[in-house]
Amino acid sequence: MSLEDTAEKIRTMEIRGAALIARAAVEALCKYGEGLGELALPEFKEELERAAGVLLATRPTAVSLPNAVNIVMKDVRNADTIAEAREALRLSSIEFIRDSKEALSKIAEIGARHIPENAVLMTHCNSQAAIGCIIEAHRQGKIREVYATEVRPRNQGLLTIRALNDAGIKTNFIVDSAARFYMKKVDLFITGTDAVTVNGAVVNKIGTSQIALAAREARVPMMVAAETFKFAPKTIAGDLIKIEERDSSEVLAKKIAGDLDNVTIKNPAFDVTPADFVDLIITEKGAIPPEMAYIIIRDYLGWEIGDFR
Amino acid sequence: MSLEDTAEKIRTMEIRGAALIARAAVEALCKYGEGLGELALPEFKEELERAAGVLLATRPTAVSLPNAVNIVMKDVRNADTIAEAREALRLSSIEFIRDSKEALSKIAEIGARHIPENAVLMTHCNSQAAIGCIIEAHRQGKIREVYATEVRPRNQGLLTIRALNDAGIKTNFIVDSAARFYMKKVDLFITGTDAVTVNGAVVNKIGTSQIALAAREARVPMMVAAETFKFAPKTIAGDLIKIEERDSSEVLAKKIAGDLDNVTIKNPAFDVTPADFVDLIITEKGAIPPEMAYIIIRDYLGWEIGDFR
Amino acid sequence: MSLEDTAEKIRTMEIRGAALIARAAVEALCKYGEGLGELALPEFKEELERAAGVLLATRPTAVSLPNAVNIVMKDVRNADTIAEAREALRLSSIEFIRDSKEALSKIAEIGARHIPENAVLMTHCNSQAAIGCIIEAHRQGKIREVYATEVRPRNQGLLTIRALNDAGIKTNFIVDSAARFYMKKVDLFITGTDAVTVNGAVVNKIGTSQIALAAREARVPMMVAAETFKFAPKTIAGDLIKIEERDSSEVLAKKIAGDLDNVTIKNPAFDVTPADFVDLIITEKGAIPPEMAYIIIRDYLGWEIGDFR
Amino acid sequence: MSLEDTAEKIRTMEIRGAALIARAAVEALCKYGEGLGELALPEFKEELERAAGVLLATRPTAVSLPNAVNIVMKDVRNADTIAEAREALRLSSIEFIRDSKEALSKIAEIGARHIPENAVLMTHCNSQAAIGCIIEAHRQGKIREVYATEVRPRNQGLLTIRALNDAGIKTNFIVDSAARFYMKKVDLFITGTDAVTVNGAVVNKIGTSQIALAAREARVPMMVAAETFKFAPKTIAGDLIKIEERDSSEVLAKKIAGDLDNVTIKNPAFDVTPADFVDLIITEKGAIPPEMAYIIIRDYLGWEIGDFR
Amino acid sequence: MSLEDTAEKIRTMEIRGAALIARAAVEALCKYGEGLGELALPEFKEELERAAGVLLATRPTAVSLPNAVNIVMKDVRNADTIAEAREALRLSSIEFIRDSKEALSKIAEIGARHIPENAVLMTHCNSQAAIGCIIEAHRQGKIREVYATEVRPRNQGLLTIRALNDAGIKTNFIVDSAARFYMKKVDLFITGTDAVTVNGAVVNKIGTSQIALAAREARVPMMVAAETFKFAPKTIAGDLIKIEERDSSEVLAKKIAGDLDNVTIKNPAFDVTPADFVDLIITEKGAIPPEMAYIIIRDYLGWEIGDFR
Amino acid sequence: MSLEDTAEKIRTMEIRGAALIARAAVEALCKYGEGLGELALPEFKEELERAAGVLLATRPTAVSLPNAVNIVMKDVRNADTIAEAREALRLSSIEFIRDSKEALSKIAEIGARHIPENAVLMTHCNSQAAIGCIIEAHRQGKIREVYATEVRPRNQGLLTIRALNDAGIKTNFIVDSAARFYMKKVDLFITGTDAVTVNGAVVNKIGTSQIALAAREARVPMMVAAETFKFAPKTIAGDLIKIEERDSSEVLAKKIAGDLDNVTIKNPAFDVTPADFVDLIITEKGAIPPEMAYIIIRDYLGWEIGDFR
Repeated sequence: MSLEDTAEKIRTMEIRGAALIARAAVEALCKYGEGLGELALPEFKEELERAAGVLLATRPTAVSLPNAVNIVMKDVRNADTIAEAREALRLSSIEFIRDSKEALSKIAEIGARHIPENAVLMTHCNSQAAIGCIIEAHRQGKIREVYATEVRPRNQGLLTIRALNDAGIKTNFIVDSAARFYMKKVDLFITGTDAVTVNGAVVNKIGTSQIALAAREARVPMMVAAETFKFAPKTIAGDLIKIEERDSSEVLAKKIAGDLDNVTIKNPAFDVTPADFVDLIITEKGAIPPEMAYIIIRDYLGWEIGDFR
Repeated sequence: MSLEDTAEKIRTMEIRGAALIARAAVEALCKYGEGLGELALPEFKEELERAAGVLLATRPTAVSLPNAVNIVMKDVRNADTIAEAREALRLSSIEFIRDSKEALSKIAEIGARHIPENAVLMTHCNSQAAIGCIIEAHRQGKIREVYATEVRPRNQGLLTIRALNDAGIKTNFIVDSAARFYMKKVDLFITGTDAVTVNGAVVNKIGTSQIALAAREARVPMMVAAETFKFAPKTIAGDLIKIEERDSSEVLAKKIAGDLDNVTIKNPAFDVTPADFVDLIITEKGAIPPEMAYIIIRDYLGWEIGDFR
Repeated sequence: MSLEDTAEKIRTMEIRGAALIARAAVEALCKYGEGLGELALPEFKEELERAAGVLLATRPTAVSLPNAVNIVMKDVRNADTIAEAREALRLSSIEFIRDSKEALSKIAEIGARHIPENAVLMTHCNSQAAIGCIIEAHRQGKIREVYATEVRPRNQGLLTIRALNDAGIKTNFIVDSAARFYMKKVDLFITGTDAVTVNGAVVNKIGTSQIALAAREARVPMMVAAETFKFAPKTIAGDLIKIEERDSSEVLAKKIAGDLDNVTIKNPAFDVTPADFVDLIITEKGAIPPEMAYIIIRDYLGWEIGDFR
Repeated sequence: MSLEDTAEKIRTMEIRGAALIARAAVEALCKYGEGLGELALPEFKEELERAAGVLLATRPTAVSLPNAVNIVMKDVRNADTIAEAREALRLSSIEFIRDSKEALSKIAEIGARHIPENAVLMTHCNSQAAIGCIIEAHRQGKIREVYATEVRPRNQGLLTIRALNDAGIKTNFIVDSAARFYMKKVDLFITGTDAVTVNGAVVNKIGTSQIALAAREARVPMMVAAETFKFAPKTIAGDLIKIEERDSSEVLAKKIAGDLDNVTIKNPAFDVTPADFVDLIITEKGAIPPEMAYIIIRDYLGWEIGDFR
Repeated sequence: MSLEDTAEKIRTMEIRGAALIARAAVEALCKYGEGLGELALPEFKEELERAAGVLLATRPTAVSLPNAVNIVMKDVRNADTIAEAREALRLSSIEFIRDSKEALSKIAEIGARHIPENAVLMTHCNSQAAIGCIIEAHRQGKIREVYATEVRPRNQGLLTIRALNDAGIKTNFIVDSAARFYMKKVDLFITGTDAVTVNGAVVNKIGTSQIALAAREARVPMMVAAETFKFAPKTIAGDLIKIEERDSSEVLAKKIAGDLDNVTIKNPAFDVTPADFVDLIITEKGAIPPEMAYIIIRDYLGWEIGDFR
Repeated sequence: MSLEDTAEKIRTMEIRGAALIARAAVEALCKYGEGLGELALPEFKEELERAAGVLLATRPTAVSLPNAVNIVMKDVRNADTIAEAREALRLSSIEFIRDSKEALSKIAEIGARHIPENAVLMTHCNSQAAIGCIIEAHRQGKIREVYATEVRPRNQGLLTIRALNDAGIKTNFIVDSAARFYMKKVDLFITGTDAVTVNGAVVNKIGTSQIALAAREARVPMMVAAETFKFAPKTIAGDLIKIEERDSSEVLAKKIAGDLDNVTIKNPAFDVTPADFVDLIITEKGAIPPEMAYIIIRDYLGWEIGDFR
């Protein structure tokens, strides 16, 4: 697939999901570089920067895309010879793709260790990373039961309870409103995330921060499972997280809503859980307190604090 | 309608709703007393106590029923002659029925005064008393807009937005999970209640306590609209509030749920909002802080602190 | 002084201060009643109600005025003969005036008992009732030192430090901003109040709630000294406390402000300290927790919960 | 200007302000080094260390001075030849001076991105860095209005409202005591700082921590604008922040105070806002959560954790 | 036993324990009155007041003693004839003694209703009233297990675990320091009390407030079992609760302590748990929130708010 | 002493205490390496890894052991020649042993600087590191007095008061339950620790977290004195801290306990104080906020975030 094809598919959301976008971009960049003929080092680098720019432009708000591109480009930029540059491109692409593929299983392994014996968990929305931790902990015999929410308006909770059911895990299905009601029985609240900001706040499915608040009230710890490419370096330099508003018909059929002239349907997709509601973020590199998000971004994703100025 | 007919209809829930049950019981009791032939005072009282017992037995967990019966019987019990007893029965029945009918409009009037100018409100579930306050405040030009939740699983929020829409009030409809997301914009959280306990806790539709918690976090005051017959005297003597669990099919169709062997659907109808999340309770007698629930129960409903021992 | 004269002087604020207004109104009402010629009971009562109305209309937002008038009128209303009515008017007027005059010394006596040995106090604004408690405690040898704030914009703190200085009390004078800085050294925060609401919130000089918050953060108790006629019955029925905004020139000279086109001077006179920041209210009747404000209003001021509907 | 002249001017506060002191010291150090004749490397380093010592001794409590000197000296210390050492001195001096001059505009740029659309801000005292952020956000059309405090006893708020007025920003001027009263309307509390400690606490004008507390109570985020040279490395090794007490006549004229034998005027210049009241610190290097102060000190200011033992 | 004998035994603590003291005083007062020969009403009242004074003087800080004496004397004082006075003395003495004897079983009955099914409890110190509730709840099959603390320095926890063990209740014995460690498993913290203040604070064995704090942190409710004669009316008028310091040898043998010149042993017997840590107080009259302490004192113990001025 | 001897003594706890274990292991490893004959680099490294493994296996839960072994082995692993490897082994062993011996005096020096003038301290258990800070601060004339707890069940508080007494420090000895009672008088709560987790939580003697909670309630800062080898890298990768349960006879003599069939004695040795209760951790490298535990583990102990996966 050519660079342009990949870019187009990311733009049209044919390729979607943080991990798939990231890997497709790295693959396209790598192939593009390999396809470049004999070039001097500056021209090679220039060409790749241009290609990176094309990819980055496809989804300006995606979090994993600039992370993936930056990880690969950083080594290219540091290369002193054309040979080194080509090798860096190849190796760091391979490494990123392999690491990102293994990320979920590593998160599951690390996350499961943080789940106590005989645990009652609560989860919200449908996160592969979070479910991975639960299933691994279940394999180790540590799960008593799980409370899974419905996740209005798109009911992703149904996917979650199917996955847990199929893994043989005793699960309770509740409406989103009942989270606080059952919180006293819960030992750990576990979710995935769409993005982690530089100060450790967690952007996730609408309702997460409300349950996190109830967890905090009941002194139930919250654990977030997140591949490192979910960490958002741009927030260092001041970009505010914009919360996407989705189509109102997810909440109320337009036919009904249409008759209600004074009524507006609001459908925010995400909310932001402050860092002080989060106890631990499980990445494929290890478990970190949310305050360390900055370190992950700087030391593991390789961003300079001023890169985005 | 005979005493037995009324009792039967309350038992089978043909007569339902706290106010309707209360008035039907008082009416039946009054008629029953009027229908009693020539009796000495002790026999008259005895007959009425028996009748009261029949009514009370129909819905042992209803809150308004014992309140209504007690208010009427108290005056009967204090009577010194048969004439006084008959008069007390008649007058206190009339008064209770009139008061309970006027309660909603008085609550609306008092509640509206507690709503600040240019107010943004949030409400949960579908409470006539709460909506009455909002509509009255709207008539006085005080409402900017209202956030109304969906109220899964039975979606009573639809009734609420219809009522607000018809009153010409600018309303936003949101999923239950989005309450905390919008709380920063809100000036007042207003709900009805199914019961108020002696220590001022509020039993209301599942999800209320979760939104109340988010309101407390954002320092948004919470106002509860409640007729005095919603105050639950039995809790003085130690009865715990039992939270009813409703049919699971309200949450998930049995066809889907049936395939998920490891999954249990939990469907609690109510939750309990602690008194320290509640700022004011609007009754038809006036506005009180929740700590005064005890006084309402003792001084207005007429229960002795030890009546239920 | 005729009823009309007194009314006029209250209206024009020639007579001012909660206690002086209250006593002047009672005196005028009493004299007015005594001056009425031979009248039947209904006419006598009617005349007095009219006179009460005249007085009440002078300062619709004053708190002590309706309290004083109500205390006297309550006994008149209950009278069964014209003689009883006249006697009730006379006696309850005398009693109210005497009680209100003794109130400050009783508050000082009771308040001083609630001040611990070797105490470091903080006070804000210039309250006779609060200073009375401090001086009485000082006489008992219990005061180590006092922190008194400047109280911008009108610098009433100067009056306070003069009063404390003259009483021989070691006093520290600080800007309002420094209250939290010194709070760790303080054992008790003590203030007066302009009004106490039915749910125990305290309306007092701007800045009080901010210091109360710092006191709460440092677990320093707050004690409020208030004559019972400062309790505001109207808030039972839902009237919101309106915070008066005073002239901007108190904050910044008009000459300077006039050149700043984009700048508005805001000068709220009071703020509201929530009941849960207040530990004790000292009245001339005894010390009560703020939750008991309702009881004071009902049982001591004699208002029915529904009087203002 | 000779090293001694510069040292003298810093000592006598002819040169004052964190940035001016820092640049003057670096300039003097650079010139001093350039003026040194032919020297072997050890002697050159020794001479510079001595000169650095002279500068550091002028204001032992200044924060920017040791930061500036250390940044330059670090490169000198690492030099392996006399040529390298001279070059290091020159280059790092130039870089420091340039960076420190550009710092305010970079902070304004980054800070403005963290201010939400249609924002209501509150600010305290008169910080160029904070005002820079506000004006830049105003240029981007993001400011609805600003609340600025009076800042007793020296009324620096007047400087702030002048600067905001001249920039055409709608501003409200309030007494310090009114901050909590208006906090509910505020979206962001923004200040500068005199020093940031290693654990992220913020030393700033008296009153800052009190407003920060009110902001925290109302869940209003607090943003602090600070050049990196305001970060205080000595606090790593345990030096407590001493809060300077300024002349009492700023608070109360000595003529008045002199008559009050029992009254002491206290006039602390600063207070300390704990890190958990601070949401973000904007530096010219990027925006960081306060917990990252340590990293800024170690990685950007170049201090070893044990340098001050 | 003569009045003097009883007074002497109370003074020398031969008669001790709040209930025993109360009943002995009432009995002595009653007998004393019955032994008085023919007297006019004023002389009879005077004699009894004198006798009451003798009894009250024996233990000036006891809480139950003035409550008991006041309950009996109140009826005597209200008597209009000598016959009435004698009858009032007899009847109210009998009633008080009977009520106080039945109090513990009524508290057990009411308290047990407030203990949820399958409950894990924690208790501190050795309170007959609290243990009564636990044992009654155990009879109803509601207790899973109990955590009982050691209660240094006098190890009253040993008495508690013996009582629970003998009742067949599964009990865990822990050091006082381990209370927070196990709090997450606990559903209810239950204690007795030595005194309840007018604002609902609870004076109890040292350590209670520390465990109450841990309970509050973990959102575990706290229930206090207290006969109404434990409510302390004097605190209305401002008397501070004095915390008794007991002999140091309870904590450390004098032989060891004697060698440690710089060491002082502190041994406070009680601490004060603030009302907002307490959820419910179980009295023999019913269960009340702590804010209702005032009502108990006024309406059930019969003290006027100003009685102690 | 041979490697095996040292390993055996660590296993049998003949060698005990975090510092002694660490130094013994390093010494044994160093000697073992020195005793190895002529070997190629790979064989040398292999032999040492094996030896390291033997040592690590002796106390799998000790914290200081892997830290010490890792610090030495890291340099060996990085060696490029056999000569370098032998030198690295020798030097890093010497350095570790010297540093660990000096650690306590450096902690005392740094910690004392964080103790304010005229300070009242509280301490719990018997920590050499914490006592060192107190004694050093006392030498500097900064200590007013110290509150030391009894520390049931093993009464280590006796050791603490002896040490403080011998140093001439005014000390108060209290039961563990009285910590909250005296907390208002305290300026700083200082303890040692058995382990610090990657997210800054502190594992210490049972009761520490309960006192830390009371300190937090009263806004009293908490300072923890800890050598860097107490930081627990394994917690990065998800190992939960297991709390050891010690013999029940420490709490209650088996003779007494044996008769109580329904009673279980629980005796947890440690509890976990969350990072947000801790203000500062004093290490021999400097003072850090608890959030920096991760940095200490990575940058000073030399663990990679993924080392333990």
